[in-house]
Amino acid sequence: MSKIEVSFTPENYQVYENRDSIVVVTDVLRATSAICTALHNGATEIIPVSTIEEARQYMEQGFLVGAERNGEKIPEFNFGNSPFDYMSDEITNKPVVLTTTNGTRAINMAAESFQVIVGAFTNISAVVNYIADHSDKDVLVLCSGWKGRYNLEDTLFAGALTYELNQKGVLSEIEDSALSAMYLYNLAKDDPYKFLMNSSHRRRLKKLNLKEDVRYCLRTDFTDIVPILKEGKLVPSNGKSELPQIRFAKQGAA
Amino acid sequence: MSKIEVSFTPENYQVYENRDSIVVVTDVLRATSAICTALHNGATEIIPVSTIEEARQYMEQGFLVGAERNGEKIPEFNFGNSPFDYMSDEITNKPVVLTTTNGTRAINMAAESFQVIVGAFTNISAVVNYIADHSDKDVLVLCSGWKGRYNLEDTLFAGALTYELNQKGVLSEIEDSALSAMYLYNLAKDDPYKFLMNSSHRRRLKKLNLKEDVRYCLRTDFTDIVPILKEGKLVPSNGKSELPQIRFAKQGAA
Repeated sequence: MSKIEVSFTPENYQVYENRDSIVVVTDVLRATSAICTALHNGATEIIPVSTIEEARQYMEQGFLVGAERNGEKIPEFNFGNSPFDYMSDEITNKPVVLTTTNGTRAINMAAESFQVIVGAFTNISAVVNYIADHSDKDVLVLCSGWKGRYNLEDTLFAGALTYELNQKGVLSEIEDSALSAMYLYNLAKDDPYKFLMNSSHRRRLKKLNLKEDVRYCLRTDFTDIVPILKEGKLVPSNGKSELPQIRFAKQGAA
Repeated sequence: MSKIEVSFTPENYQVYENRDSIVVVTDVLRATSAICTALHNGATEIIPVSTIEEARQYMEQGFLVGAERNGEKIPEFNFGNSPFDYMSDEITNKPVVLTTTNGTRAINMAAESFQVIVGAFTNISAVVNYIADHSDKDVLVLCSGWKGRYNLEDTLFAGALTYELNQKGVLSEIEDSALSAMYLYNLAKDDPYKFLMNSSHRRRLKKLNLKEDVRYCLRTDFTDIVPILKEGKLVPSNGKSELPQIRFAKQGAA
């Protein structure tokens, strides 16, 4: 039976750090959704790096590299952090290097824990099953936030995960942070897209024309893959997925 | 018109720091509720100190001193952080020095901002009016949390404050943090005591026999005083209160 709590930002991580926990890093919009998508669609591993400089060094060695800052793809690299960038055959059987504003930093921050896994709505049931299989461990959901600040989308994922784990009966204790996230998820779950668009991130999301990305990132269970961190690289916990490649249709201008 | 956001823990404060903001420090259970009570009942000022050592030095100079760690009064000092400790005539016309596990640290942390004020349910309408009178300033609610961790009671206060300010029409922008807190307050507001007792702090609260304190700290508007930080001391913004002294009756063993 697991205790669950949530660090709403990476800035708070040290207080919650427990090296014997499973840390579920999430950055729903969009790094961890993109990572799940890339591994599902055949990338062999994702190498999360914290700086542009590291990303550049990998590119000079011939790696495919995704790089995003402030919500936008950095032009010199192959991809940004939109999951749609990771739906092409270009990545099949290749490693991909990734650096993002918030998510990759959070992943690397937690590296010393028992196990770092990557979660998003995209793979939530797989994450639930992974935790249920390791229910002697406590769970910390590490939200990537937005430049150190709390955000609603990562909280909703933390709440959904708490809700599902609680339904499955694997939780012995739900700390205030996880309980609050679950309450918020309960308010949002009938229409998470609408709930989120009413949040103050709305303008940022609209500005960057991310509506299709948001719709994709809030849908559940495109993949049965749980990315796990091994020697600094994210690999699929269960090898290849049983499910077909993700080819999510954009609905056009919304 | 003000923007409002919430730092759910002192650990996150630096990210949110804005020296042009009003910072509302809250530690509902129980430091800021006790501070409001003490100033209302005639203490001339509260001197928040971060360490036991500082508190001891003040005591040696003859000051009345409140000191709490881990929810319990430290025996050598005059008071703990229960509001009931600050309802006697002993404090009338005297300064009181206070150090607590979470709250006094948060107060001192924010000292460089435009203005630090102290909020609790005990004085929430007065805080709303103070902010409305300074609506050219943004508002940051700084929750004291519990040893660096998120807690529900401070979040509920942040949510109640956001709700009331929004009702009053003084908010131009509600950030994700404040929006989430407001959603949670909306769930709690019919019976905040029950809502809170269902949280994971329940055991801590029960263990310390704090039920009467919790009931008191969740009731609104015992006082019209807003404690404001001036040269390291908390003083009543509006001089003396217009309201009678607080003599909240304990209901006995609950």
